Amino acid sequence: MEQEIQQKLESFRELNKKIRSYYEAVSLMAWDLRTGAPRKGAETRAETIGVLSTESFKLQTSREMGELLGVLNRPEVLKQLDDVNRRIVEDVQEEYDRSVKIPADKYQEYVTLTSHAETLWEDFKENCDFAGFEPYLTQIVAKTQEFIDYWGPRATRYDTLLHMYEPELTTTKLDEVFGQLRDRLVPLVEAVQSAPDKPKSEFLNQLFDKDQQEKFSKFLLEQIGYDFDAGRIDESVHPFATGLNPGDVRITTHYLQDDVASAVFSSLHEGGHALYEQNISPELTGTPLAQGTSMGIHESQSRFWENMIGRSRAFWDRYYSELQSHFPEQLAQVKVEDFHRAINRVENSLIRIEADELTYNLHIIIRYEIEKMLFNENLDVKELPRVWNEKYEQYLGIIPPNDGVGVLQDVHWSGGSFGYFPSYALGNMYAAQIENTIRKEIPNFEGLIAEGNFAPIKDWLTDKVYKYGKSRKPAELIKAITGEDLNPDYLADYLEKKYKAIYNL
Amino acid sequence: MEQEIQQKLESFRELNKKIRSYYEAVSLMAWDLRTGAPRKGAETRAETIGVLSTESFKLQTSREMGELLGVLNRPEVLKQLDDVNRRIVEDVQEEYDRSVKIPADKYQEYVTLTSHAETLWEDFKENCDFAGFEPYLTQIVAKTQEFIDYWGPRATRYDTLLHMYEPELTTTKLDEVFGQLRDRLVPLVEAVQSAPDKPKSEFLNQLFDKDQQEKFSKFLLEQIGYDFDAGRIDESVHPFATGLNPGDVRITTHYLQDDVASAVFSSLHEGGHALYEQNISPELTGTPLAQGTSMGIHESQSRFWENMIGRSRAFWDRYYSELQSHFPEQLAQVKVEDFHRAINRVENSLIRIEADELTYNLHIIIRYEIEKMLFNENLDVKELPRVWNEKYEQYLGIIPPNDGVGVLQDVHWSGGSFGYFPSYALGNMYAAQIENTIRKEIPNFEGLIAEGNFAPIKDWLTDKVYKYGKSRKPAELIKAITGEDLNPDYLADYLEKKYKAIYNL
Repeated sequence: MEQEIQQKLESFRELNKKIRSYYEAVSLMAWDLRTGAPRKGAETRAETIGVLSTESFKLQTSREMGELLGVLNRPEVLKQLDDVNRRIVEDVQEEYDRSVKIPADKYQEYVTLTSHAETLWEDFKENCDFAGFEPYLTQIVAKTQEFIDYWGPRATRYDTLLHMYEPELTTTKLDEVFGQLRDRLVPLVEAVQSAPDKPKSEFLNQLFDKDQQEKFSKFLLEQIGYDFDAGRIDESVHPFATGLNPGDVRITTHYLQDDVASAVFSSLHEGGHALYEQNISPELTGTPLAQGTSMGIHESQSRFWENMIGRSRAFWDRYYSELQSHFPEQLAQVKVEDFHRAINRVENSLIRIEADELTYNLHIIIRYEIEKMLFNENLDVKELPRVWNEKYEQYLGIIPPNDGVGVLQDVHWSGGSFGYFPSYALGNMYAAQIENTIRKEIPNFEGLIAEGNFAPIKDWLTDKVYKYGKSRKPAELIKAITGEDLNPDYLADYLEKKYKAIYNL
Repeated sequence: MEQEIQQKLESFRELNKKIRSYYEAVSLMAWDLRTGAPRKGAETRAETIGVLSTESFKLQTSREMGELLGVLNRPEVLKQLDDVNRRIVEDVQEEYDRSVKIPADKYQEYVTLTSHAETLWEDFKENCDFAGFEPYLTQIVAKTQEFIDYWGPRATRYDTLLHMYEPELTTTKLDEVFGQLRDRLVPLVEAVQSAPDKPKSEFLNQLFDKDQQEKFSKFLLEQIGYDFDAGRIDESVHPFATGLNPGDVRITTHYLQDDVASAVFSSLHEGGHALYEQNISPELTGTPLAQGTSMGIHESQSRFWENMIGRSRAFWDRYYSELQSHFPEQLAQVKVEDFHRAINRVENSLIRIEADELTYNLHIIIRYEIEKMLFNENLDVKELPRVWNEKYEQYLGIIPPNDGVGVLQDVHWSGGSFGYFPSYALGNMYAAQIENTIRKEIPNFEGLIAEGNFAPIKDWLTDKVYKYGKSRKPAELIKAITGEDLNPDYLADYLEKKYKAIYNL
């Protein structure tokens, strides 16, 4: 490589490393706000996050960055670079093109606003106060609409947002995939709902000591291979995972006194996200590739560990006695088959994060449809509670008794994450497609789970998914692993097989 | 004010606010490293802290800052400014002059090094591994020596460091003040040591449940007026307080299973630091004046709450029964007078932070003398354990059995804080001088303590000390409050009166 190119590449890597430093600082400040930062410091903190995000944004859109990309992102230079560096250049160029269109002051306003709104959201949710939240959300939607204008609308305005989380994903594609899935799941949901032999689950809702729940969650995380020397677990209203750097991937969960399953599955879910980021190849540290390749693939990993592993019969054949030993009074009389059926009980519930695997997709479709209305049809934010409640009645047959368990239940919109929700359903589809492959390549898959021997599974996923970080694109990754493109039938097959067994259909 | 000056002033305030944002981010990252950040992320974190500190440093020494100071820091402009803005200009100019002399790359190396060393120190201390720590410390001292050259030595090289923590403080002054103090304390220590009626304190070293200790510490902090909505308490190896912003002033403590007094007094100590920062006038938020005015004054507040309040008989007349109710098994048979004598027992101990009020100053004098040797006499870092142990034998009659409880006991040097230790003794002197005044102005001082009614005391201190933040200099503040300059006799008077009573001399 020419010496000049070599030098530019080094400056480019250095600049990107600096941007990762801002990312780490901002992520820690956001983590802190959600896990225990004192209330009275939140407003200044929101400003601080705004200032540092803006500085980072300035670096990403700086003249220096533009010049470096101008040198490196040319065919004759790209062919001299190795795969990783080529992918970094490509990725940074995309981000640069997207960012350079937003004026820095607009961006700072946006970050301060969303950071502030995210903090306030907890109280609004708790007080079921949509009227209080509405002015913030109205501003966030308006600013996002403005950003869509800067970026340029794709097939529809909402497509611009979708593309950010899952490259090239479109409303057309999503309508089609969601349609296919719906056609197969609706009859299944109906069959399940009219099945005579429904699982009982009352025993899940006794009183469960919080400390014991915490111990059991930590135990399970250790079992699946979450590295506590490269992470920690805390509590927050809405569980999340955040990778500050590959040696520091944190998760949160929440412990509900009257629901033993909630913390278990949110821990496994966030643990799945964390396994992904903890096992990204160290050579990518300090580069923009040291993260999940898309929200959908990220979610496939959380879903895989939460559902394909964590809600399987094999898993509880191994761990149920451990759970019983944490809660002998509550569970000694409950058999493992009844426990397994209970944690897979299908119920038309209000809360997405507590929903079963089957109806979960309906929760996503509701948000997807509402977001399309907000951005493609200018739905007034004031109308949200009405639209929300109507759709919940239509799809799930229930009307939220208040906005706290309705339209205010998710943090995403307060943080400006529109176009993100579909990733959850994509995650389910990717996960099922990957599971189908893993069963072929590791024939003893269920046996390993039943032994609590997750290392071969984690290693397989590291080799196929985790180590690449963002250096392979989602479609490329799925094709390489499974030999075909995204195919919603695997999820439908998986769910049919599972629920027919559980409901004795 | 001219419009141009007005505009410059606004830009100047804005730039300083941005610098405070970096300060908040870096402080949070440092807090996090010391309270529970995962081990494997520490190395990247140290780099991240280095990068952001450097960016902040660049802003402090930027051409923009130089130009703004050039406009604002002129006599004809200063007289148009109000007191607060004038003091900000003056303070920023001092910092600018100091910083601009250090090349940015040297500073970044220094920050990365000290951040890294601070993290490693915990392990070195635990493993009593001075040999492992020595190369880091050697580098830190060498870089500090280099910085002294950049800043320019004052009367001696070490004076340059002293001045940074306590403006205008000199080795000459310190030798004198420490001399006066020593002359009065040495006979007192001797009298105490030969007193026949020594307090018993074995009962402090039974086993005390950690959770109960934590509850009691939090209870006391609430009692003295620490605002948990503007702070939080965590655990760390070495307790500390850190003000991220006036709405977020955090403290840490440590709970020793076999020592009930340790957490109580470290909590009150750090709580005192926090009361100062939580009560700085809100108009100073976002300015460089939103902090304590000097290390010595800061320490006077932690000492005041820890010792003058927390080790007083009146305090335990109010709270001893509460402590007993947390530990009935251990303390039900112990009388309050015996407890009060026990927590004031004088003992020649190895660990500074566990030392009594009387011998504490000897611990400081040892560090002061060693630091003078390091910087004025080029003492080799390798010699530190030997010198340390000799001085402990000479001043306190004990030789540390290992370096973990000897030369490695304090975090300060790993963070590059040389010239800081004398502040602790200054803090004692300021605190006693302030206490003498408060007793005159609030004649019912002891009565209030015995009632657990701290609001009038906190309000008095807010009015005289806290609200000003850094807008009054230490000497100015002490003169305004007490009507005279620093006078070590108040500390000697206080200690004589106290220990004569406790030891029945």
